[in-house]
Amino acid sequence: MRPSHRQPSQLRPVRITRHYTRHAEGSVLVEFGDTKVICTASVEESVPPFLKGKGQGWVTAEYGMLPRSTNSRMRREAAQGKQSGRTQEIQRLIGRSLRAVVDLQRLGERQIVIDCDVIQADGGTRTASITGAFVALCDAVNGLLAAGKLNANPIRDHIAAISVGVYRGQTVLDLDYVEDSDCDTDMNVVMTGAGRFVEIQGTAEGEAFSRDEMNALLDLAEAGIAQLISLQKQALAD
Amino acid sequence: MRPSHRQPSQLRPVRITRHYTRHAEGSVLVEFGDTKVICTASVEESVPPFLKGKGQGWVTAEYGMLPRSTNSRMRREAAQGKQSGRTQEIQRLIGRSLRAVVDLQRLGERQIVIDCDVIQADGGTRTASITGAFVALCDAVNGLLAAGKLNANPIRDHIAAISVGVYRGQTVLDLDYVEDSDCDTDMNVVMTGAGRFVEIQGTAEGEAFSRDEMNALLDLAEAGIAQLISLQKQALAD
Amino acid sequence: MRPSHRQPSQLRPVRITRHYTRHAEGSVLVEFGDTKVICTASVEESVPPFLKGKGQGWVTAEYGMLPRSTNSRMRREAAQGKQSGRTQEIQRLIGRSLRAVVDLQRLGERQIVIDCDVIQADGGTRTASITGAFVALCDAVNGLLAAGKLNANPIRDHIAAISVGVYRGQTVLDLDYVEDSDCDTDMNVVMTGAGRFVEIQGTAEGEAFSRDEMNALLDLAEAGIAQLISLQKQALAD
Amino acid sequence: MRPSHRQPSQLRPVRITRHYTRHAEGSVLVEFGDTKVICTASVEESVPPFLKGKGQGWVTAEYGMLPRSTNSRMRREAAQGKQSGRTQEIQRLIGRSLRAVVDLQRLGERQIVIDCDVIQADGGTRTASITGAFVALCDAVNGLLAAGKLNANPIRDHIAAISVGVYRGQTVLDLDYVEDSDCDTDMNVVMTGAGRFVEIQGTAEGEAFSRDEMNALLDLAEAGIAQLISLQKQALAD
Amino acid sequence: MRPSHRQPSQLRPVRITRHYTRHAEGSVLVEFGDTKVICTASVEESVPPFLKGKGQGWVTAEYGMLPRSTNSRMRREAAQGKQSGRTQEIQRLIGRSLRAVVDLQRLGERQIVIDCDVIQADGGTRTASITGAFVALCDAVNGLLAAGKLNANPIRDHIAAISVGVYRGQTVLDLDYVEDSDCDTDMNVVMTGAGRFVEIQGTAEGEAFSRDEMNALLDLAEAGIAQLISLQKQALAD
Amino acid sequence: MRPSHRQPSQLRPVRITRHYTRHAEGSVLVEFGDTKVICTASVEESVPPFLKGKGQGWVTAEYGMLPRSTNSRMRREAAQGKQSGRTQEIQRLIGRSLRAVVDLQRLGERQIVIDCDVIQADGGTRTASITGAFVALCDAVNGLLAAGKLNANPIRDHIAAISVGVYRGQTVLDLDYVEDSDCDTDMNVVMTGAGRFVEIQGTAEGEAFSRDEMNALLDLAEAGIAQLISLQKQALAD
Repeated sequence: MRPSHRQPSQLRPVRITRHYTRHAEGSVLVEFGDTKVICTASVEESVPPFLKGKGQGWVTAEYGMLPRSTNSRMRREAAQGKQSGRTQEIQRLIGRSLRAVVDLQRLGERQIVIDCDVIQADGGTRTASITGAFVALCDAVNGLLAAGKLNANPIRDHIAAISVGVYRGQTVLDLDYVEDSDCDTDMNVVMTGAGRFVEIQGTAEGEAFSRDEMNALLDLAEAGIAQLISLQKQALAD
Repeated sequence: MRPSHRQPSQLRPVRITRHYTRHAEGSVLVEFGDTKVICTASVEESVPPFLKGKGQGWVTAEYGMLPRSTNSRMRREAAQGKQSGRTQEIQRLIGRSLRAVVDLQRLGERQIVIDCDVIQADGGTRTASITGAFVALCDAVNGLLAAGKLNANPIRDHIAAISVGVYRGQTVLDLDYVEDSDCDTDMNVVMTGAGRFVEIQGTAEGEAFSRDEMNALLDLAEAGIAQLISLQKQALAD
Repeated sequence: MRPSHRQPSQLRPVRITRHYTRHAEGSVLVEFGDTKVICTASVEESVPPFLKGKGQGWVTAEYGMLPRSTNSRMRREAAQGKQSGRTQEIQRLIGRSLRAVVDLQRLGERQIVIDCDVIQADGGTRTASITGAFVALCDAVNGLLAAGKLNANPIRDHIAAISVGVYRGQTVLDLDYVEDSDCDTDMNVVMTGAGRFVEIQGTAEGEAFSRDEMNALLDLAEAGIAQLISLQKQALAD
Repeated sequence: MRPSHRQPSQLRPVRITRHYTRHAEGSVLVEFGDTKVICTASVEESVPPFLKGKGQGWVTAEYGMLPRSTNSRMRREAAQGKQSGRTQEIQRLIGRSLRAVVDLQRLGERQIVIDCDVIQADGGTRTASITGAFVALCDAVNGLLAAGKLNANPIRDHIAAISVGVYRGQTVLDLDYVEDSDCDTDMNVVMTGAGRFVEIQGTAEGEAFSRDEMNALLDLAEAGIAQLISLQKQALAD
Repeated sequence: MRPSHRQPSQLRPVRITRHYTRHAEGSVLVEFGDTKVICTASVEESVPPFLKGKGQGWVTAEYGMLPRSTNSRMRREAAQGKQSGRTQEIQRLIGRSLRAVVDLQRLGERQIVIDCDVIQADGGTRTASITGAFVALCDAVNGLLAAGKLNANPIRDHIAAISVGVYRGQTVLDLDYVEDSDCDTDMNVVMTGAGRFVEIQGTAEGEAFSRDEMNALLDLAEAGIAQLISLQKQALAD
Repeated sequence: MRPSHRQPSQLRPVRITRHYTRHAEGSVLVEFGDTKVICTASVEESVPPFLKGKGQGWVTAEYGMLPRSTNSRMRREAAQGKQSGRTQEIQRLIGRSLRAVVDLQRLGERQIVIDCDVIQADGGTRTASITGAFVALCDAVNGLLAAGKLNANPIRDHIAAISVGVYRGQTVLDLDYVEDSDCDTDMNVVMTGAGRFVEIQGTAEGEAFSRDEMNALLDLAEAGIAQLISLQKQALAD
């Protein structure tokens, strides 16, 4: 039995609120249960130095947690003077995941910067971030299309992410913090609307996992991501 | 005429939402119009090294802005590896202001850390932070009282803050971003419930100001802070 | 009674020594009693990136204290790898204060960098810095005028600063370290030769202060700054 | 056809040289073709602060590349003042992988620090690092056993790692730099001697990958890791 | 002919002013011509961690230059966030030189920190620093003796330093900035009162130097340092 | 008697292995007994900003030690976020030494970056680095000559370095770690093929040294460096 009384294949309640803050070209509050992340997309009419003059754009991401988004207060990274290895891993993952569905040539020489800031954490912040960031990215791109700055949509497919894991011998979908702290395997899966994989990051926190467990986890993830993409579509249709 | 069509002595709509996030001992969303700040109070059962064994507590604050809380994206301080001078000034101001109404002896050897994170900025983030942080601090202290960890309330009075300024020759209360960017004088005033001053920080951005303007600004601030303290009391009474 | 036996409205002996070191375009040793600060003005024929091509100049300041300028040795900021929040606050204040009396358009596309380095501290280092820096700035500008690099003087008025405070219930002018460490209110006031305010930064270190005390403090500051400006004029006339 | 003319399921020549340098308790040069990494294991009779007094040990890893281990010179991380996100990701992966096969209770309150320093890079540095680091770890642990500092071997199983990928439509084992720079999918797999998974990190650099490709990649990895573990056993038997 | 019209073996006018600032246990302004350095000695009743409980003391040094001590303004190291390699070399040299004449056992478990801050630079700042720092160190140690905190003087001998060089084919003593910028060889020599060497650091900036030149340079240095030690003795006798 | 049973004037076995790694334009493993350093030379077709457009090239060096190159593990400088003062001193010394024999005009507007990375340390890493770096530099320059990018060889002479010291009252050549840790004087000498001095850095770690000892040390160094230069020539002739 899961602490939250969910079924093994059951997502937490997912909510995607667009236009959450006022200034960004795309601004989404994404909630996976008690995990809440503000995802903004900022359009900049320039590219990083390594892309200057190459006729293509860029999508990148930064991630942060408010110090008291967690159960006990974390030190503020700005005050410590550096981002942790975990933060860097997550923001690199978000950026790669989004770029996988963007035609950077078609985006033109501009950059879209995604900021994912966790205001409340209860497990799965990186998968919620990817799922919400995609919607913010769509809003920013739609703004460019509406303004005539883009002729064709550079977004080729949906992208969403979910965690799966082995919790007390059971494969489960969308682990919350209590499960995540006590599971044997934790896997984050990023997939496209077409059902193909963009990232798989599985870690045995306790017991190593078998090939059969691997397969069961991917089955759960595929079904969960299909639901998330459906929720993204609803949010974007509103 | 003010861009927002407010009267010179009129605050923006102010909202104070308690229990905004789940983990912190005090958690408040404070809104001054379009300025929105999450203020959390975290209780730590230890004190900074310079206070070890002195039989008193400490209240300190940290401040941050989400990169896209502003009209154009700011660089993330955690990624830059340091907090700006402005950030440090503001968080020092918040900490000093709150300590002015706390009996640190009575607090005992524990620390309350206030985090003020701006999720949307439209001027006046530091004054909104102080005003909201006080309510979060009250919630944290009330929790300690309810848990029997404190015998007597160390909070001696209310504290709130507002900005005043000279905008196009007119003294005005609670400047929003448009006014702030184009004013001659900007002054932040922090006052207690008893109507005494804790901090006054006035800067002539354009023309230097006269003693008469100074007096008119303080009149506005006194009236505005009285309203804010009344709103704090309502919020705490809910 | 003040520890120094001064009258409440009495400045410490103030000395302004021009041409103190050899290399800088302006170099002043300013002494407020035992507080001694070397203020240099360096002319650079370029502007910071955010002003490139805008046809205006810039004046900025940096502040530092020798590690043993104080009673007990402070850690060297260069060795610690960062400037403290206090240092940044002070150098921002010095820069803003000087810019308030400079016509940046008339200065042309060049920058004047003011360095204020405290070699001995006894309270009031920031107000001594502003008062001395103005004289160094004048010397640097006069050099540019003499060299024909400027057609008209961009300095529009004098600027000077003093601290005032409430010490043991008495409002006093120009606090030294002993008073500063034990006062209820400490206020730094920056004014022009025309008697207008550029900065007011008042902090209740102990008891919050009343509107009447505020007025008494400003009266003291106005009289003190008038004396400082007179001393600046004498120094520049020599 | 692979640029190196290898079969799709063929490893590069792998060499594991023990006792490569003199000072470390374990010191291994591991070579996967032209990729060469020095892996040392250092025993420290203390644990990190978060484990003090908990009666268990710790295994951690750091990773670095010599600036000219690569085709064009990289900036030295020590000179830049920080480790890149990539470096941190890799060293966290190495540490987690090794801990997965170590009984930390049995290790006692001591730490083994693994340093993996790439002296020549040609793709697959992280998988070579894990594979070589395991042997260095064994040598360090065997030294502790021989010295009577450990009663029982805390190492529970072998661990090794290999990369697999989709290169020009073909699933291949152990990508070298030329393949890695031009592949659609790159996956690093870490497995135990018992054939269970400890880490799977797959990234679609170009086209997203299907479930079938995923399965083919894992088949290749399982076979490759079995060979690596056999090579580790030979090296340790010498 | 030297630009300063000095003889090859002639020092610049050297002045040693004790009790230059008020707070430090030793405070000296040392002047070698236009080179002016404030040297303070601060006594701390603790030792660095690596010496805790070893029954001995420590002497260490830090060095800095005011940004406009030089002909063109240097960036402030505190603002840059690190000390340059040159700064670190010099402060390590000063510390080693002083420790060479101090009996650290006899000093007891306390540390004396020397700060050498250049307020005006004209070549030879490191040798002036060592020469002046020794006098500040003596004053601090004499204070400890007078206060009964030391039973016996831990200072075993004088120490002083001078630069010598090959300038336009001529070996010269005590190079000023103009000579230093244009010399072939620059050598800093640190010697004891007994005429023995503590440090020799010679660098061929242009032409490499011969063994004969080396000997001529050491002859000059020996004579120069004898004069400096005599001046130290006079200053300490005042 | 030396711990290694060497004669006072005897070098450790010195080996210079060219083409040690694959990517760099020059790559040398230099061994002085158990001290082993990888020296690479990287050609970059640009110069540092301070040399832009001046028609000359630059040679610079960086130095590092693998964390476990030493007897007890050192902290990794990249993880600490800065290079130690010792590291900076050494890399500045290596760069200066090499530039002393390079005609920078003749090198053209390009930079050669030398990386010296110690993989095993047993004393004398800086002198081994200089001696090996020179050979790597020759290989890089010879590559430029062979490719027609240089018309004439900018290398004017050989350069090599050795340490000498006073160990238990005896002057000795090429100190190993055991001697270095327990000697009174340690001196590093850098000389050209023509037998002239480029750098002399002598430090009295214990007793200060006399002029006679100085002379004896330089005699030893001259003879040792002549042998090293002969070994460089053999290596380059292979």
